[in-house]
Formats: sequence, C-alpha cells, structure tokens
Amino acid sequence: MAIGIGLVGTGTVGGGCIDIIQQHRESFKQHFGIDIELKRVCSLSVDEARARGLEGIFTKDYRDIVNDPGIDIVIELIGGTTVARNIVCEALAAGKNVVTANKALMATHGKEVMELAGTMKKELFFEASVGGGIPIIDPLKHSLIANRISTVMGIVNGTTNYMLTRMSEDGLDYDTALREAQDRGFAEANPTADVDGLDAAAKIAILASIAFNTRITIDDVYAEGIRSIAPLDLEAARDMGYCVKLLAIAHRKEDGIDVRVHPTMLPLTHPLASVNGVFNAIYVVGDSVGETMFFGEGAGAGPAASAVMGDVLECARHLQAGIAPLVGCTCTDTVPLVAMEGLHTKYYIRFAVADRAGVLAAMANVFADHEVSVHSVMQRGTKGEGGKVDLVYVTHTACEASVRAALSDIVKLENVVCAEPSLIRVEG
Amino acid sequence: MAIGIGLVGTGTVGGGCIDIIQQHRESFKQHFGIDIELKRVCSLSVDEARARGLEGIFTKDYRDIVNDPGIDIVIELIGGTTVARNIVCEALAAGKNVVTANKALMATHGKEVMELAGTMKKELFFEASVGGGIPIIDPLKHSLIANRISTVMGIVNGTTNYMLTRMSEDGLDYDTALREAQDRGFAEANPTADVDGLDAAAKIAILASIAFNTRITIDDVYAEGIRSIAPLDLEAARDMGYCVKLLAIAHRKEDGIDVRVHPTMLPLTHPLASVNGVFNAIYVVGDSVGETMFFGEGAGAGPAASAVMGDVLECARHLQAGIAPLVGCTCTDTVPLVAMEGLHTKYYIRFAVADRAGVLAAMANVFADHEVSVHSVMQRGTKGEGGKVDLVYVTHTACEASVRAALSDIVKLENVVCAEPSLIRVEG
Repeated sequence: MAIGIGLVGTGTVGGGCIDIIQQHRESFKQHFGIDIELKRVCSLSVDEARARGLEGIFTKDYRDIVNDPGIDIVIELIGGTTVARNIVCEALAAGKNVVTANKALMATHGKEVMELAGTMKKELFFEASVGGGIPIIDPLKHSLIANRISTVMGIVNGTTNYMLTRMSEDGLDYDTALREAQDRGFAEANPTADVDGLDAAAKIAILASIAFNTRITIDDVYAEGIRSIAPLDLEAARDMGYCVKLLAIAHRKEDGIDVRVHPTMLPLTHPLASVNGVFNAIYVVGDSVGETMFFGEGAGAGPAASAVMGDVLECARHLQAGIAPLVGCTCTDTVPLVAMEGLHTKYYIRFAVADRAGVLAAMANVFADHEVSVHSVMQRGTKGEGGKVDLVYVTHTACEASVRAALSDIVKLENVVCAEPSLIRVEG
Repeated sequence: MAIGIGLVGTGTVGGGCIDIIQQHRESFKQHFGIDIELKRVCSLSVDEARARGLEGIFTKDYRDIVNDPGIDIVIELIGGTTVARNIVCEALAAGKNVVTANKALMATHGKEVMELAGTMKKELFFEASVGGGIPIIDPLKHSLIANRISTVMGIVNGTTNYMLTRMSEDGLDYDTALREAQDRGFAEANPTADVDGLDAAAKIAILASIAFNTRITIDDVYAEGIRSIAPLDLEAARDMGYCVKLLAIAHRKEDGIDVRVHPTMLPLTHPLASVNGVFNAIYVVGDSVGETMFFGEGAGAGPAASAVMGDVLECARHLQAGIAPLVGCTCTDTVPLVAMEGLHTKYYIRFAVADRAGVLAAMANVFADHEVSVHSVMQRGTKGEGGKVDLVYVTHTACEASVRAALSDIVKLENVVCAEPSLIRVEG
C-alpha cells in the first residue's frame, strides 16, 4: 500500500513538491520500489489546490492532516515558529513522521521537536532547511561521520550572495544591489532576515549542531549583515587577492565552538570564493576527508522541493521496510561556545581619516597599546572631499575584544577619523 | 556487542581506516551509538600490521576473514578484478557485508556483485570507489532521488587535473608536468590508467549506472586521455574564456545515455572550471535540484578512508538495528547508449598548417562538404619554423562522425596540414 503524504503549505516549495509527486510517482515505484500518495493538502486558500486539480483532497485545517489515519508523513512548509511548531509537534504526537524545510523552527526549537520525535520513535527530516537542494545534512549525518569535523562554513543566503556579487563585479552600491535583488524576486520587500544575517544564522546553528554533536540555537550565533559593505571595500579586497562573502562560520576550537555570521574576506583561491550569484555552498573540513564542498541552488521551488521530497522518499523507504528511525538527534555532547569577544582572527579595517601629518602615528600608537599587530596599511585613492583619505589596515591575528577597544579609542582621537570605520573579518 | 570488522589490504587506504578505528571508536559509540571492532587484518606482509600493534589479528590468508564467524563486515582494499573479486564474492556468499573502494571491480563486475549481495540480502557499499572522500554515491542513492538526473559530469582523476592545472597556470609541457606529478607521488611510474582516462572511465561508469538506473560498464565508456594536450591549446582556451579539464561525462539524451571521458573545454564560469590541482568534483544536474556540485580530495589515505569508514559505520548502524539492506542495485532499466559517432557537441580543432594562400579556403570547403559549421577560426602566434602557423577552429554543434570525416579529409589535402590535428570537445 502506498505511503500516505499530507502536505501543509502550498506555496512555492509546496507547489514544487506537488509537481514532483505528480510527475515522478511511477518512476519512484519503478526505480526504488517506493510508493507515495499525496492524500491531503492544507493551505489557507483553495486556489492553488484547485489550479492543480487537488480540490478533492484540500483542507484549510491542518488538523485534518494530523488526525488522518491514512497519512504517514506530514510535510510542513508554512515556516515560522508558531503555527508550524504546533503542526510539527501535533503531527509527531499523533504518530506521524515529519519532513520540514523550516530553518527557524529547527534553529529555535530543534531540541524540543527532535526529542519529541525520539520519544515517539518517528522520523523528523529537515534537509531543505539549509542550502535549498544541496545535500548537506544527510552527508553530515551519514557519509562524513567517520570524521572529526573542525569547520563548517558556508554561503547559505543566496540574496546577499547575489547582492555582493553584483556589487563586486559591477560596482553597484548596496542600495542599488538591494533594489535589483528585490526587482528580480531574490529579496523580500522587508529584507532584514537576509541582509542582517539572521537567515544565515539559523542555518549555521543547524549545521553546527550536527557537525559538532552539540545543540546550538539561533540565539547562540553572532550575526552581522552586509548593510555597511561599500564598493570601496570590495575593490580593496580584490586588489589584495580576496573577495567578500557573507559567511556562516562554525569552527571547533580548543576552548569550544565558535559560531558566527558576518561579511568575511576570503582568498580568491578558496573553494567558496568562486560561488557567485544566488548559488549556495557549504564547505566542510574533517580530520580524514580534508576539505570538501557542497554546491548548488540555495532557494527556489525546484531545489527546495528536491530536498523535501528526498527526505519524504527516504522516510517512505524506511516505513515500507518497517524500520524505526536510524538517526535521531545527534546532540550528545555539551560543548561550550567561544564568546565573540574572545575570537582570534585577522581584520580588515577601513578608516576615512583627515589627510594630515601625525594621523598614522596616532593610530599606530592606539593599535600598539591594545596589542593589535598591523600587517599592512595602505592609502586608497586620492585625497577626497574635505581633505579626507581612506586608510586600509589589515591586522595579524588579533583578539576581537582588543580590536574593538582599539577602534573605539581611534574613533575618539581628535580630528582623525571622519566616519564610522568599516570592519571585515578575514578567513584563511 | 561490537560489529566485527575484517580488513583486507593494509596499504595507504587500509592504513587510513585503521587510524580512524583506533582514534575514533569511542567517539562513534558516544555520538552515534555505533560500536565497531577491528577483528582481523589481512595483508601480504606482516610489517604494516606489526608497526601498528596489530600482529595478533594479522593473517596472510583472506579466507581467515571470510570464514571468521565473528566478522560482520569485510573491507576489501586490495583493488583489481581478480583476487578482489574472489574476496568480495566469497565474503558475500559467506553472509558477510562488504565495503569496497574498488572502482575497477564495480565498473566491470558490478552486476555480478550487486546481484550476489541482493541474493544474500547483504550490504555492498562502494562510496570510496569514486571521488575519494567526496560523498557522491550516497547522495545519488538517497538525497537526490526525487530528481530525474540529466547530467553527471566530473573531474574524477586528481593526477591529470594536477597536470593540466600546472600546464595551464605555469606553462609546463605534458612531459614535465607528468614527471613532476610522479616526483610528488601524484602519478604512478606507469601513468596509463590516469593519463589515458581509464581510471576516470571506471568512475563515470559507476556514477552513470546509479544516476540513470541502467548498468554501464567500463567497456561502454569512450575514453581519451590527455597525452596530446599541448600548452598552446591551454593558452588558446584561456584566451577564449575556457579551461581544459579531463572530464568524465554522462548525459541523458533523448536517444539514450552518452558516456565518455576526454579532455574538454569548459567555460571559466562553469562550477567545475575552478576545481584545480589534485582536487576532484562531481557536477550533477537534476530536473528539480538544478545544478549541484560535490567537491573534495579525490585521493589519499585520509579522504578514501573517510568514505570507506562512512560506509562501514552506516553498515554497522544497519546491522545493530537488525535491518536488511535498504538500497541494493538500482539498475532497473535498460537504456541504450549513444554511440560516440552519433555525439553532437562543439569542437575545438587546432591544425598546424602551411602558411600560404588557399589553405583556409581548401579547409573551409572540406568542413562545408561534411556539414560542419565553423563558429570561428583564428591564427595563433606568428609564423613558426618552416612557414607553419597554427589555425584554431571552433565549430558550432556538429556530429562527431562528420567532424572525424572532415578531419580525415583535411589531413589528406596536399601541402596543407603539417602535423596531427589537436581536437578538444567543448561543453557548455
């Protein structure tokens, strides 16, 4: 008998899932012996269902799905952490297996829902919550488990990667790049979740939890967006052999897990450096495997539906074989987090300063006082309006707290700094 | 009770596996609840085992492993298709599960061993046979199965990719690049398997079989190596915005599967174009997921052992859960192959020709006679020795048979072509 599927949320990704089921159901039977049947769809509006001839299995109440004894797997695609949380929890409690694309839910209430799934001995899959169609959660939970992972680092937000690519390659400023991304449907009218790094923060919380076997929530992630990135910084980066990417970073350090999202300078030779436009990629380093990278389309109906339906088919395969979940929550350890102030990395800092004698010396003294060792300092461009010039510093590895203290003191110097300095952390 | 492991072959990869088991056994128990124990190692020489304190579980006879009732999983790492085939078949017949890194075995006797595993209801895993540590077989058998795959294409031989990178970036010729690769341990003393594309052919046979649900063996794969690639071709490619890679290619076309290995011109914007040095990457296109790519280290003790041990742990997980194999052979269809003569693609062709009037016209006539439409023709460099110049043609999409016929006729023209033409197919 076919495995019954209930779908909650018939938007872009839900539509993609319906397409896949309608087009490939026979292929799944033939090639994998997996038979799935879409038994019910839930949405706030009947129009989408009607357009696809699914009116007969349409409902506005998700409880009709959760309580349907013919449904084995519930797909949750409405997003958010309120109603979605109820759907996922009620479905699990009712003995359903769940597949979700909900990054916010997993990064906020991951512990609760994974534990509930464990108690109920049901599957809870969420491949689509990170990186769209890119298989990354499954490889971390299966193929790569012989490794001790030291780094998971990715471009996991296509909107900002598109904007940074346009700013870097074509010299657009932030506002123009954002407007273009909005016009092309890559950015929301309210772009906060993307441009302030919150979307990426949820995703790295999920990846880091799996890679390091310790629960990390979105609130644990330091997040800084791309609003203050100027074309001048992208230009300076390129001249130094770097690009600027909004990276979601998680490192295992001696004293704990360091997890953060911020614009990052990356050498052009790094595998992530050539990931442009709306593409996503996740770079993983393990003690045996060395460097690996998983690349693909991070958003859109097709890619996300590919991940959702991959999970659905795997779940259906398990159900048909009559087996209990093989991998549940893997957060078996409690590893401390490294506070942002304790971060040690290299820094790019650009100051707009008064172009006069003594400025360089005054700044150098402050850096020295805070034990921030400067690797290079360069003047960019020619003297601008009002006798200002841009000074670009790159530090040696330094402590975040010291760099912040130095910046704070430099800004206070009399008649030196003319605008908020621009700070970009450097990887590799 | 721990899952018993028997390891046959204690060379580079086998040593990597022993390292992983010795270093991470406790971690596997703690994080995944998987307990594996290395019960016996087989090798022709006791030295390796002695060096690792494994003398007590050493044997020279693989039958001691195959017949040991305490062993659940046999790891075959000796390679080749003779003894290795016996080991794999005897192990399966004796009710053991098997993990192998053996591309030649899988690409030659894949049907036999997969069917035997199916009959015996035992696992046969082979992630390490393609792409070293890169998870690719598992994603194709799990995460990506909601897709109809149209293309699997990869850089799956690190030796030739290293050589081509050095030739392209630093102007080395083929012989110098090969010697350097040999000196650095990237190429064998007899480099045939690598430079003639045979290693890559075995790997694409394996990937295509999975991606297209049809059995493809190494003998089905057209293979052409990199021996005839000249620095001049790499230079011309770069000037046109292309790079040259030894690609293993499998496309699903209307009339069947097109599977081949040859040097290929690829636009510099293609995700595979920035995969340099000994790195490998496999690019997969599916109808839902769109473009994806899996990147990493394609060879070496660590990466290959990561893949082998990932398989071992997955197999052990299944055994501990008491479940039968979930995915066996997926070659459910019989899809015809497209003969190489019927291939339609674009071609780069370089001729060393006599620098005299009428040459261009004579060649143009031959191309026209064979209905090969020329996109561009360019003279490279200045007149060389003996009044020769290089003419670089790029065709529109043309039929392989027509292009070969045209080349054959052009070579026969009197006093025109001075050396064997250089032909490179163009993708994208």
